[in-house]
Amino acid sequence: MTIQGRSGAAPRGRIRLGMVGGGEGAFIGAVHRIAARLDNEYVLVAGALSSTAEKARRSGLAIGLEATRTYVDYNEMARKEAQLADGVEVVSIVTPNNEHMPAALAFIEAGVHVICDKPLTTTLENALKLKAAVQHSGCIFALTYNYTGYPMVRQAREMVQAGELGDIRIIQAEYSQDWLTERLEVTGQKQAGWRTDPARAGAGGCIGDIGTHAYNLADFIVGVPLKELCAELTTFVEGRSLDDNAHILLRYANGARGALWSSQVAPGNENGLRIRVYGTKGGLEWNQVNPNYLFWSAFGRPTQIIARGSPAAGTAATRVTRIPPGHPEGYLEGFANIYQEVAHAIRAARAGSKPDAAVTFPGIDDGVRGVAFIEATVASSKAGARWVAL
Amino acid sequence: MTIQGRSGAAPRGRIRLGMVGGGEGAFIGAVHRIAARLDNEYVLVAGALSSTAEKARRSGLAIGLEATRTYVDYNEMARKEAQLADGVEVVSIVTPNNEHMPAALAFIEAGVHVICDKPLTTTLENALKLKAAVQHSGCIFALTYNYTGYPMVRQAREMVQAGELGDIRIIQAEYSQDWLTERLEVTGQKQAGWRTDPARAGAGGCIGDIGTHAYNLADFIVGVPLKELCAELTTFVEGRSLDDNAHILLRYANGARGALWSSQVAPGNENGLRIRVYGTKGGLEWNQVNPNYLFWSAFGRPTQIIARGSPAAGTAATRVTRIPPGHPEGYLEGFANIYQEVAHAIRAARAGSKPDAAVTFPGIDDGVRGVAFIEATVASSKAGARWVAL
Amino acid sequence: MTIQGRSGAAPRGRIRLGMVGGGEGAFIGAVHRIAARLDNEYVLVAGALSSTAEKARRSGLAIGLEATRTYVDYNEMARKEAQLADGVEVVSIVTPNNEHMPAALAFIEAGVHVICDKPLTTTLENALKLKAAVQHSGCIFALTYNYTGYPMVRQAREMVQAGELGDIRIIQAEYSQDWLTERLEVTGQKQAGWRTDPARAGAGGCIGDIGTHAYNLADFIVGVPLKELCAELTTFVEGRSLDDNAHILLRYANGARGALWSSQVAPGNENGLRIRVYGTKGGLEWNQVNPNYLFWSAFGRPTQIIARGSPAAGTAATRVTRIPPGHPEGYLEGFANIYQEVAHAIRAARAGSKPDAAVTFPGIDDGVRGVAFIEATVASSKAGARWVAL
Amino acid sequence: MTIQGRSGAAPRGRIRLGMVGGGEGAFIGAVHRIAARLDNEYVLVAGALSSTAEKARRSGLAIGLEATRTYVDYNEMARKEAQLADGVEVVSIVTPNNEHMPAALAFIEAGVHVICDKPLTTTLENALKLKAAVQHSGCIFALTYNYTGYPMVRQAREMVQAGELGDIRIIQAEYSQDWLTERLEVTGQKQAGWRTDPARAGAGGCIGDIGTHAYNLADFIVGVPLKELCAELTTFVEGRSLDDNAHILLRYANGARGALWSSQVAPGNENGLRIRVYGTKGGLEWNQVNPNYLFWSAFGRPTQIIARGSPAAGTAATRVTRIPPGHPEGYLEGFANIYQEVAHAIRAARAGSKPDAAVTFPGIDDGVRGVAFIEATVASSKAGARWVAL
Repeated sequence: MTIQGRSGAAPRGRIRLGMVGGGEGAFIGAVHRIAARLDNEYVLVAGALSSTAEKARRSGLAIGLEATRTYVDYNEMARKEAQLADGVEVVSIVTPNNEHMPAALAFIEAGVHVICDKPLTTTLENALKLKAAVQHSGCIFALTYNYTGYPMVRQAREMVQAGELGDIRIIQAEYSQDWLTERLEVTGQKQAGWRTDPARAGAGGCIGDIGTHAYNLADFIVGVPLKELCAELTTFVEGRSLDDNAHILLRYANGARGALWSSQVAPGNENGLRIRVYGTKGGLEWNQVNPNYLFWSAFGRPTQIIARGSPAAGTAATRVTRIPPGHPEGYLEGFANIYQEVAHAIRAARAGSKPDAAVTFPGIDDGVRGVAFIEATVASSKAGARWVAL
Repeated sequence: MTIQGRSGAAPRGRIRLGMVGGGEGAFIGAVHRIAARLDNEYVLVAGALSSTAEKARRSGLAIGLEATRTYVDYNEMARKEAQLADGVEVVSIVTPNNEHMPAALAFIEAGVHVICDKPLTTTLENALKLKAAVQHSGCIFALTYNYTGYPMVRQAREMVQAGELGDIRIIQAEYSQDWLTERLEVTGQKQAGWRTDPARAGAGGCIGDIGTHAYNLADFIVGVPLKELCAELTTFVEGRSLDDNAHILLRYANGARGALWSSQVAPGNENGLRIRVYGTKGGLEWNQVNPNYLFWSAFGRPTQIIARGSPAAGTAATRVTRIPPGHPEGYLEGFANIYQEVAHAIRAARAGSKPDAAVTFPGIDDGVRGVAFIEATVASSKAGARWVAL
Repeated sequence: MTIQGRSGAAPRGRIRLGMVGGGEGAFIGAVHRIAARLDNEYVLVAGALSSTAEKARRSGLAIGLEATRTYVDYNEMARKEAQLADGVEVVSIVTPNNEHMPAALAFIEAGVHVICDKPLTTTLENALKLKAAVQHSGCIFALTYNYTGYPMVRQAREMVQAGELGDIRIIQAEYSQDWLTERLEVTGQKQAGWRTDPARAGAGGCIGDIGTHAYNLADFIVGVPLKELCAELTTFVEGRSLDDNAHILLRYANGARGALWSSQVAPGNENGLRIRVYGTKGGLEWNQVNPNYLFWSAFGRPTQIIARGSPAAGTAATRVTRIPPGHPEGYLEGFANIYQEVAHAIRAARAGSKPDAAVTFPGIDDGVRGVAFIEATVASSKAGARWVAL
Repeated sequence: MTIQGRSGAAPRGRIRLGMVGGGEGAFIGAVHRIAARLDNEYVLVAGALSSTAEKARRSGLAIGLEATRTYVDYNEMARKEAQLADGVEVVSIVTPNNEHMPAALAFIEAGVHVICDKPLTTTLENALKLKAAVQHSGCIFALTYNYTGYPMVRQAREMVQAGELGDIRIIQAEYSQDWLTERLEVTGQKQAGWRTDPARAGAGGCIGDIGTHAYNLADFIVGVPLKELCAELTTFVEGRSLDDNAHILLRYANGARGALWSSQVAPGNENGLRIRVYGTKGGLEWNQVNPNYLFWSAFGRPTQIIARGSPAAGTAATRVTRIPPGHPEGYLEGFANIYQEVAHAIRAARAGSKPDAAVTFPGIDDGVRGVAFIEATVASSKAGARWVAL
């Protein structure tokens, strides 16, 4: 058997990557770095890992950055790197949500491509401004709705697009966790701290942190615009400001109906991102916890277990598959697939050509839709869980 | 190992049972007959299995009823049986929904106990009338929300009642099927026919047929009143009158929030009745498709798989467990547990005593709440999926 | 949906059943009684439930037998019942293993059909004698290798017979339990007591109690003679006389190879009866713990989950299916299927006709093969785990 | 949440890595390269990727090696690299089995550490020679029994060592695949070609390719010497020289008994590496297909699902865990853990110190035991599946 889909090779001319955020105590920064490294497409050369000078220095040292390219201020980093012959070509923004927009603007203005963590911004107004800036700049802008990188999510999307499910009727999406069941944010835990703080997270708590992933996953697979929603956001843990649970009804433009549940207070759930899609001809089920398998039920036929890497997987999944079936790929590989696709796009940009049409990493439009979704849920919930249009 | 919980014995003085409905082509009638037979507590002695004379005769013959006790009209049956020294003590009503109320009234007036299929009636008004009649009569009235008979459902209820989950915050209930994905009712299939016909099924289609089970299951396990709901009932199959899919948001009196999904057009789902309950201290998950196991997650601890019949199962589950763990019990055994408990209550009534407090079969109040739930969902949906109080 | 396969009806002229063994404290007797009752084909009229007079009396009373037909001695029962106009037509023998043969002989000689628990006898010599007696008598003889009654086991057999797997190459069978992990037999637990006592169980402990089921299941599904085996029987629990674990290599007449593991000291396993069969064209997997699904993998295609009661299930499975897919059937239903088929055979015998060719309950030959298997494993193990021919 | 166990950082002074084998069409070479890259501990600087000059050149180019450090002959590579100031410190040998020994010797003699694919050699004689050479050299020698790198395998080992299972009684190991169900090796498929060729693979086919992994996994977790075995190796596919299926009985030095099954002709199995271990106090089950969970059953208690990254995971698992529970890690991460531990050992060697005692990558002794196991199975099988001592 051979490594499928991609070479796993170390191409010459690796892409120069910078990072904003992701210093000591951060979670997602390290994930981005592994994702960038996995396929040997990038080399991390600069960073503004923390806005505290000493911490920025220590964090840069720990991951092997040169001291001269360890910055405290991302604006300075953008300016200076833009002047270097070997300055960063692309920057990963892995800060709390409220910094996404200013950091992205700084780099876009410097002509640096951007890979930005989700959600795009803390307000729709900002999201639209950022979109305008991105469009004006011509820079590549990727948003790490990383679950779209899983091969069997690609498979699901391909099957829906090919009409195998017929007309889509029902979408059940959910993302459940339990780590905020108690008031972790008062213990000094950094992740819990900013995620439950409106100033840094925005108006959405659980809905912005993980509900947006569930929404995006449905959007990515089904590809039908969401028209209206009715959301009940709840804060169960006393003293918490933002929602830690969300129940949402969904109306899609094609007449499909759906429900979305996201929670961070559901004991026994670690990262229970799960989607089920039903159409006139069949149904699909995928669960992030065991992501290498897609359950496919043509109406009236036995359910089939489609394995990543198997002959039953189509071209969209195979493109982002590294190893044969039965040897599981996981979260980091899915994340790396986004980086791999962005690398492809950057190389195409270097060459002045277009990226392959099969490249489907989420971008600025997905980001805008994601923020619009969050804002709509907050508005709906504030109105007593009334229907609002998107 | 021994048969646990119950003797499985054939007690002397079996209870004389009659049946209304359940003739040729019926499904649930045969299930009731097996359930009645399993523990040897009942003997079926009379029936009005069909309102068509010839079919009533043939159906009675097929299941071994004496011709003299095979009726066409259940009113006649109630009257005549009441005059026999060995007339029926209890009757099972397994007709389409619209006949539940008149049939039940006929037997209650004759002093015969009633086991009635769900939903109780087709309108809340009727449900309340029937409740009044039942209360006035002193007859035992059981409603076959049969899933409450599963041992691990009893276990879940017991754990919630014992406070093991802490305060309940979230309830996720669903019941999904696929058999009505296409327009089966126009093919002459009897089950599909009446279930999609408002005249016989009432105002709820999928919600009345199976959504009510999901509601009842949550109600049975959690025991907190539902205060408000917001329901989107949808009819996906063209030409169908009643809903075949329902998405519902739930607000409970104690502040808990929930979602309920029921569907009969979700390919790959046969009888996907599943419930998840989360509290401040832990979470539970149960799935009817593999009903012998309950997944229990105390917050911060590994998920445990509690097996029916195992030492970890408590007294409520053990009472309704026949065989040791690892040898699965199924749908019929769960159904039979309701019959077993009704038998116990009837024997207590014979003896002029009270049934054991542990007996928990669903009754007239569960029926009324179930119909109120259906009516509320229909009202909410008609109003464009607005919140309505119960 | 309708009750599939069978009517669930109460046929006129129920079969008169007797029982030997199965008194107070017994497990399997109660299971047989439920199995006999489930489809309303039998009526239990007599029993020699215990060889202790007072216990026999009490046990008979508890299950509703008339005092005049409650016996202490099964020989007397056989004699007397044979003289009654309404004497038993068939007897269920549910004693410890050492009583199977004498009890069976007593009833066969009286012209009474026999349903006998497994294993057939404690020695092959006796098994062959009993076979001769059965053949001479013309009586129906059924052996409750009850797992052959599960619909999806029938499905597996049908698929193998139809050649869907191609030539069979590999058979992996196992039956694992944990209830004898500690020395339960010294606590007075009746089931453990006789199963670990060579005088009552025969030369095989775990292998005779459950290994024989695993062997039979493979035999039933694959239908190829076992030619040679190499067995390592082990007694792990100190002070125990018989094996509590068995590892066996298998050589089949067609060149297939297999392995069988049975254990009663494997913590976490309740009744882990599981079989996997692989051929040149595909593989099957079935697990008794979740028995309503058969996993079928045609080589190079995705694994399919064939559900009991679904359109993908063939005629052999459908014949023994009572309720639609998604509503689980369990151990008792599988057991009842054996009783149902025996009832069919007895009715055919009453009528002087042949039973339907599709009736496939295990009989005297399966019993002889099972005992030969046990004896061969014991002989092989005593020789230091050498190959022995069957 | 933070990246657990390890920093995921890019330490200064990355280790200079070379590779032998792993050119075009190879599978495992690319896996090793990703594993080396994941934690940024290594930089690949030289390779003898193929013994065909043009192919070596093309392969080196494809993965970014400098032409001057792309070799055709690994002996030359060892010699030349040893003379470079920045020559390779460690080499990964990922050739067919027959080249493991000569390549390893070449590098050891040059003072280069070795990471070698399994099995160690094609004969026990060679394995012992290599062991002597390794010991004499003082070089670090790692063998990529990569499955030992999975966190939950570490967890299992730790629990056994801590006595949580009590005395070990039973070990059930299996590794099943289906990709050689048909005669793939005649189609030109490179992987199938050498694995079924005795000249390159050695005397074991399936047993050497994957059976040895199952053996090693049991050995790693349980840590008790295997004393005797009885093996039936079978070649099912006509025209194939080596075994494609193996059934083995096992006797351990402490009295434990086990069975091992490995197969490459079992349709529906991709990489079905699974182990179950039972002791006097409890049992464990782990399955490589869903590797982030360990099922733990203390006798008499409910089975617990221990999740990688959760509080229930101990220090051994946590050390090799990168991301929180619920975000799956897979095969590549497990592989990378071996590389991570070797890196640690190399850094300790650089510093003249000892590696941390917790570092447990498989080494030369595991390799020798693995080859001894293969030879014993071949000898046993040739003798008609008789017991042989190890």
